[in-house]
Amino acid sequence: MSSKIKEYTRQINQYIDDIKLVKQPQELYLPVDYCLSNGGKRVRPLMALLACDMFDGNISDVIGPAVGMEIFHNFTLMHDDIMDQAPLRRGKPSVYKKWNANTAILSGDVMFAMAIQHIAMCPEKHLKTILDLFNKTVIEVCEGQQFDMTFESLDKVTEEEYINMIRLKTAVLPAACLKTGAIIAGASSHEAKQLYRFGESVGIAFQIMDDWLDIFGDEESFGKKTGGDIIANKKTWLYIKAFEMADETQLRDLRNAFTNRIYNPEEKISIVKNVYLKLKLDQLALKKMEEFNKKAYGHLNKIELPEEKKKDLKTLAEKLIDRKI
Amino acid sequence: MSSKIKEYTRQINQYIDDIKLVKQPQELYLPVDYCLSNGGKRVRPLMALLACDMFDGNISDVIGPAVGMEIFHNFTLMHDDIMDQAPLRRGKPSVYKKWNANTAILSGDVMFAMAIQHIAMCPEKHLKTILDLFNKTVIEVCEGQQFDMTFESLDKVTEEEYINMIRLKTAVLPAACLKTGAIIAGASSHEAKQLYRFGESVGIAFQIMDDWLDIFGDEESFGKKTGGDIIANKKTWLYIKAFEMADETQLRDLRNAFTNRIYNPEEKISIVKNVYLKLKLDQLALKKMEEFNKKAYGHLNKIELPEEKKKDLKTLAEKLIDRKI
Repeated sequence: MSSKIKEYTRQINQYIDDIKLVKQPQELYLPVDYCLSNGGKRVRPLMALLACDMFDGNISDVIGPAVGMEIFHNFTLMHDDIMDQAPLRRGKPSVYKKWNANTAILSGDVMFAMAIQHIAMCPEKHLKTILDLFNKTVIEVCEGQQFDMTFESLDKVTEEEYINMIRLKTAVLPAACLKTGAIIAGASSHEAKQLYRFGESVGIAFQIMDDWLDIFGDEESFGKKTGGDIIANKKTWLYIKAFEMADETQLRDLRNAFTNRIYNPEEKISIVKNVYLKLKLDQLALKKMEEFNKKAYGHLNKIELPEEKKKDLKTLAEKLIDRKI
Repeated sequence: MSSKIKEYTRQINQYIDDIKLVKQPQELYLPVDYCLSNGGKRVRPLMALLACDMFDGNISDVIGPAVGMEIFHNFTLMHDDIMDQAPLRRGKPSVYKKWNANTAILSGDVMFAMAIQHIAMCPEKHLKTILDLFNKTVIEVCEGQQFDMTFESLDKVTEEEYINMIRLKTAVLPAACLKTGAIIAGASSHEAKQLYRFGESVGIAFQIMDDWLDIFGDEESFGKKTGGDIIANKKTWLYIKAFEMADETQLRDLRNAFTNRIYNPEEKISIVKNVYLKLKLDQLALKKMEEFNKKAYGHLNKIELPEEKKKDLKTLAEKLIDRKI
């Protein structure tokens, strides 16, 4: 891995470790400490630092807001886990499961405020711009989470609606991190915008890859059992496209598998996977992913900087898609 | 009522009515609209406007952040109602009851972001100061709510701990509103601080009055049945002082009433109220309230402005304590 990626990750981890998290009342702050100490890849703040570095900015100017974005991201996980009733997060009990929903609500809320405290550490001349970008992003992430929940009970979701949902839920935050780093480093608004769009497309590609891996991934290297999305009837890109493209027999198979409780999990996965393969959705998903990847690099190419300057960000994006980080 | 209080309230209501609340996804925004359209007295933003007016500031500079504080306040109510399982808010079903907990979590989160969007409308030269004050306040309000929940399961809470809890949960937000108005109007840091302390003490006095009214208030003018706090075993100022001051017989009565389920609600209220009256807690609470009121006006007096300038704020504070607003 590039030495810059390593070094910046070390700095981010150090910065987060140095935040004094456990104060009174402990009932409020222990879950915050538990959540933030549980690591994660911390790629969002890393993106902000790499973007800042790309435009020769001061890392010390951007690390506060970058960590603010990471705290915000962890806050969304804490609240999402209540809404999704997710018992595990990064292999450990989620805050909602380890404590209770009330704790996860309130400790989440205080994390949101802590996130803005760190956003506010940005150099004052950029504060208004960065804060506006952050607020817009937060609102979009909430909208994405709501669309995701709403889609669960809808009969039909279009591909376009799905892409927009994952854009909001997953892609705008890394995009905002990149833009934040660029703005603080003094990039032009054209450059900052291109970097935002790069992040947005990489984020969408990442999520389509996530859908693909959940079904076609190698269980060993992926680190979890495949087929979880099928079991949960999740409206992924594959699910949506399958219903769009299926012929009558395939449609019957899909409907049967997703609504009929007579199948055990393995049977259900097998029926659905079979339809996906017949429709070549394994290949089509990778193609779609590649489309967004290409779009992403198109935006990066519009930034007039030597390739050398873009190297680390490219490495990071590739590693993310290939799940090598 | 003073014409300024009326006029500024009208402006605040108009401003909030003009915010376009219902967007897509509607599942996210309808509860926000429901919550904000449900009114409330909106005294917090009014305080910011009056403080700004006191120092001859531009109302148009402060109304955005003032409304931000009101949106934040409504966000806390939406989340508190989940935590407290409160079915009603301002006489109508709470969001958590009308929809569900997930909706109240996520629509609350988006309101938090909308609150900061309005805070960010403050004149740029004051943004860092106002944002830092806001973040500090949000964190304190969360701490207050946590202390309140923690106290429920504690055997003993001291008067000092209780006052600190209500300071955090109730008083720091109006205090921050006043300080925000003062800062934006260009008041000195000494003046802004005194106004903050004025608000803090008024807030504490207000809450002690609230505890008093719940038991000794006139049901008709108070608008709700008295004794609710006793039924809920709430650790109010009266409860805490009663356990501190009671002799052995009174202690037995209190313990019996609060832990024994053989009493019906009326009996329970009657036993506890009887002990409170024997200990003269009705008078002592009013004395304590008056103490904070006096402290508040002490701070207001330290601001060197003609009495005329302080008139509206005083009127508002008096009306708040007397529940005339």
